Amino acid sequence: MRLLEEKIISEGRVLSDQVLKVDSFLNHQIDPSLMNEIGKEFAARFVNEGITKIVTIESSGIAPAIMAGLYMNIPVVFARKRKSLTLTDDLLTASVHSFTKNETNEISIAKKYLDSNDRVLIIDDFLANGQAALGLVEIVQQSGAQVMGIGIVIEKSFQKGTEKLKELGLRVESLARIASLTNGEVQFINDKVEELV
Amino acid sequence: MRLLEEKIISEGRVLSDQVLKVDSFLNHQIDPSLMNEIGKEFAARFVNEGITKIVTIESSGIAPAIMAGLYMNIPVVFARKRKSLTLTDDLLTASVHSFTKNETNEISIAKKYLDSNDRVLIIDDFLANGQAALGLVEIVQQSGAQVMGIGIVIEKSFQKGTEKLKELGLRVESLARIASLTNGEVQFINDKVEELV
Repeated sequence: MRLLEEKIISEGRVLSDQVLKVDSFLNHQIDPSLMNEIGKEFAARFVNEGITKIVTIESSGIAPAIMAGLYMNIPVVFARKRKSLTLTDDLLTASVHSFTKNETNEISIAKKYLDSNDRVLIIDDFLANGQAALGLVEIVQQSGAQVMGIGIVIEKSFQKGTEKLKELGLRVESLARIASLTNGEVQFINDKVEELV
Repeated sequence: MRLLEEKIISEGRVLSDQVLKVDSFLNHQIDPSLMNEIGKEFAARFVNEGITKIVTIESSGIAPAIMAGLYMNIPVVFARKRKSLTLTDDLLTASVHSFTKNETNEISIAKKYLDSNDRVLIIDDFLANGQAALGLVEIVQQSGAQVMGIGIVIEKSFQKGTEKLKELGLRVESLARIASLTNGEVQFINDKVEELV
């Protein structure tokens, strides 16, 4: 998605070979117009999948997910993150390890907001090692619902997340795919192809 | 806001005289169309205030705030909640006590996303005792920016939040104002007036 790539180039900060900071428009400050375009793009890419519900995770997944939900006219459910969970009877839960923060959280969704008839689109802001997305897949599958695809705003393609999700037979659509962050520079996958569009 | 009140009546669950649960459309599962209408309404109410930025708090404030930001064509910044903060040099911070959860969190916004020229609209999902809103006001004022108003989705008018904010000379616009939750029933303020509209 050209608009998103341009925003990453102009405002993203490469902190290391592994870390891209985009807190001026996605993770802390949020650009609503860009989120609107992102939502429209997710809706277009998954229009034929009969999606009934979007699942995301707090907090940075909420803005892109809500815009996609608006265009698809379906509800959004966000998983909550907690250090530990008590009283899990009414909850679907999974453990998610964050390599960047080096911490493990329990994520959860109330059972009543997913059922076996749901066809779910999972949306998240970043895909790196895939831990959050895999946790969300696990939760959706616990409910008996079907994961129809994963929509990612920014994919760090040099990490293993996409590969792991595709190995599970899941469709992954990432709006910006980063091939590398070496030398303080963002290189996208398919740069050249997209320039011809 | 009639649409919101109807949603509260049909889907809200009164858990006690103090607690209204609206996690089917606002706090856990989110209704994007309703958020869209809420964003439009906030934008209309604050259209003459020259707002340059919306400030909210994770996680449930994000959806209404992002929709308001879309209609007002301005950025949204969400404060993060943490049990404790280290390295606060680049952060504006405040302490917020939650009476419902009986815990105190540090909330923070990066200094660079607020400056003294900003005219800020604070948006949050609930206003009860006003602790979160007061924490956000404190953060905005630390930056030298001006708080132009507070937009609340659901106000529990029988608690002290609105009063405290108004005592500070702040304009509070709440889209649903709950007079009481006694006997398991939601009573709105101005019920009768609104029926005549």
